[in-house]
Amino acid sequence: MKKHILPKGFLAAGVHCGAKKKRKDLALFYSEKPCKAAALFTNNVVKAAPLILGAEQIAKGVPIKAVLVNSGNANCMTGTRGIKDAKAIMNHTAKALGVKTEEVFTSSTGIIGQFMPLKTILKGVTSIVKHLSSSGLNNAADGIMTTDKFRKIASRKVKIGGAEVTITGIAKGAGMINPAMATMLGYVVTDAAISKSAIKKSLKIANDASFNAITVDGDMSTNDTILVLANGEAKNKTISSGKDFNLFLRALKEVMVDLAKMIVKDGEGASKFIEVVVTGAKTLKDAKRVADAIGGSLLVKCAVLGGDPNWGRIASSAGSAGVGFDPEKIQIKLDGSTFFSGGKAKEHVRRKASSTFKGEEVKIEIDLAMGEHSATVYSCDISKKYIAFNSYYTT
Amino acid sequence: MKKHILPKGFLAAGVHCGAKKKRKDLALFYSEKPCKAAALFTNNVVKAAPLILGAEQIAKGVPIKAVLVNSGNANCMTGTRGIKDAKAIMNHTAKALGVKTEEVFTSSTGIIGQFMPLKTILKGVTSIVKHLSSSGLNNAADGIMTTDKFRKIASRKVKIGGAEVTITGIAKGAGMINPAMATMLGYVVTDAAISKSAIKKSLKIANDASFNAITVDGDMSTNDTILVLANGEAKNKTISSGKDFNLFLRALKEVMVDLAKMIVKDGEGASKFIEVVVTGAKTLKDAKRVADAIGGSLLVKCAVLGGDPNWGRIASSAGSAGVGFDPEKIQIKLDGSTFFSGGKAKEHVRRKASSTFKGEEVKIEIDLAMGEHSATVYSCDISKKYIAFNSYYTT
Repeated sequence: MKKHILPKGFLAAGVHCGAKKKRKDLALFYSEKPCKAAALFTNNVVKAAPLILGAEQIAKGVPIKAVLVNSGNANCMTGTRGIKDAKAIMNHTAKALGVKTEEVFTSSTGIIGQFMPLKTILKGVTSIVKHLSSSGLNNAADGIMTTDKFRKIASRKVKIGGAEVTITGIAKGAGMINPAMATMLGYVVTDAAISKSAIKKSLKIANDASFNAITVDGDMSTNDTILVLANGEAKNKTISSGKDFNLFLRALKEVMVDLAKMIVKDGEGASKFIEVVVTGAKTLKDAKRVADAIGGSLLVKCAVLGGDPNWGRIASSAGSAGVGFDPEKIQIKLDGSTFFSGGKAKEHVRRKASSTFKGEEVKIEIDLAMGEHSATVYSCDISKKYIAFNSYYTT
Repeated sequence: MKKHILPKGFLAAGVHCGAKKKRKDLALFYSEKPCKAAALFTNNVVKAAPLILGAEQIAKGVPIKAVLVNSGNANCMTGTRGIKDAKAIMNHTAKALGVKTEEVFTSSTGIIGQFMPLKTILKGVTSIVKHLSSSGLNNAADGIMTTDKFRKIASRKVKIGGAEVTITGIAKGAGMINPAMATMLGYVVTDAAISKSAIKKSLKIANDASFNAITVDGDMSTNDTILVLANGEAKNKTISSGKDFNLFLRALKEVMVDLAKMIVKDGEGASKFIEVVVTGAKTLKDAKRVADAIGGSLLVKCAVLGGDPNWGRIASSAGSAGVGFDPEKIQIKLDGSTFFSGGKAKEHVRRKASSTFKGEEVKIEIDLAMGEHSATVYSCDISKKYIAFNSYYTT
């Protein structure tokens, strides 16, 4: 397994404070040097308290030095008391670290509609700052998990502007089969020197190719947050545009796609990873809509689980996306074999398709024959475990 | 159990022809007197062959005398041969009944992407016309079923314009948990004398309150068809507008809502019926979107299955609908008990909520406090059976 390390100037920690019964439930990142920050938040109308505060911080362009994340309680639908609680956590973290309150960014994930176990968390904050270390990455990754089965870390090193830049990220799983409705958290830290506009732009592009590529219909949970911090400790020539920007973007995208794929693979009860590739769409939006419709279709997920190369269900879900195409002209490939093209089903392919949809990673390709745009979406199958899990567990 | 009868002048039949292994797979309605017809079809880009022909017939306003439905094969993604096959079925049915080809309306449901077992079906057509009778309603309702566990029939008698009018409908289940992706067929026959524009208008309104109220996101399968036929044999004063129209509309709506509810209750593996009522929305569209989001949420369905009054998931899925509201002002009731209002969770309600979501019919009410519009959506829980069913069965 690849060993991931924190970029220069960053420390991290993860502890168990008691918001959850057993597993670690608190994570902290810290950089002595203030960081440029960019963030993306849920588009859900119902937003958790820390997101309301975080969005203000990011909009103001305040430099960030610390990120404190708790799992176990989402601090959502908690009204003014929720805002007060989030501010108390920021205050307490700032004091413990000797930084300003506005330099602390905070996130929460867990159950909706219950007040935060504030005392427990504040006690945890006092403790976690003592655990900060340059080798605390794994613990931090553990601290943000809820129902995740494994920790999610990805990193890249890349030469930019005369120096080696490190980009390292952690994420917490959507967990549920439909990422649209579960909380995704992602935190990426880098020692790159980069301009404010460049970090913002690169996050937007990388997010579309990663976390947004596993979101169905653009829906998001109440707490989804993706944050990137850059402290400039790599001492590279400041990235703003051109070749350096592209190098940074590529590495950031790779880190975030790695994390997004891990989230899908860790889907509750999922046994198979599904890659949906839509080509030949008239617009990018069309491509995305069709890919989302296929990737999000319960019947397609069930077909994949059952190892049934049911291309008819795929055509039907593509057709339900509200995107125009000529069914006679489309081409459908499953795991590399063409099942439908030239207006005809390839029955001999279906009969011989003993291996299609049988592996742990399956691929669905559909060419709409309408234009030049394409989109990829990552999904997973559904299983009985998912149903059992979400029926008897209060998230 | 209520005994449903066919309206005056209609005959029906249902037989097993061999497109499916055991169950009845062919249904026929016939009226000697030509019928005014209105129909609604799927908005899926991928449309089955009989829908392409049926839409032309209805658009032309041709009077209809017979409806032939086969189950077992959807005749979809079958190109020009599919169209030829559908025409052959219309021709053969017309000959066997001694009517014109254009007077025969046909539908198909079943597997997508395989050519019709034409010989088998044509043989079945020759046979089914001999079984036509005024007591053939149950057999016809059986003939259109695919994975349905029970037949779906509803009827109403109502005095209109000096005569007793009968409205009788049959439907086939969406079957799947997400009706959006499964085929719904509905056929309503009535002896009412009604104008062409009135039958069209009443179908549209009744459909919005029934079959469309169980459709998530407006998606539909490749074969969805709702048809209403009126032969005028009740000899009532022709319905066109005003009080008579309203009487007819109310009865038609009741028949169609009955059928739609039966479809939800027969959801594959479903154990509980969910009624989602959204009030206080700014527009009708907003109300519908929020109701669809809640009714379609996998996490909400799982919570209902597990008997967990998880109002936070409901707030979150409402917030994901892309409809603006103030989370602090909403009110959430589950099975009649208020779990959230005035910006506060009612924790004492939750603690005492031993019976909430435990019955076979559950109710979710959310008031958005934004306006005067409301919408109701019918849904069902999800269960392990659903997953098992759709993974190993090719629809």
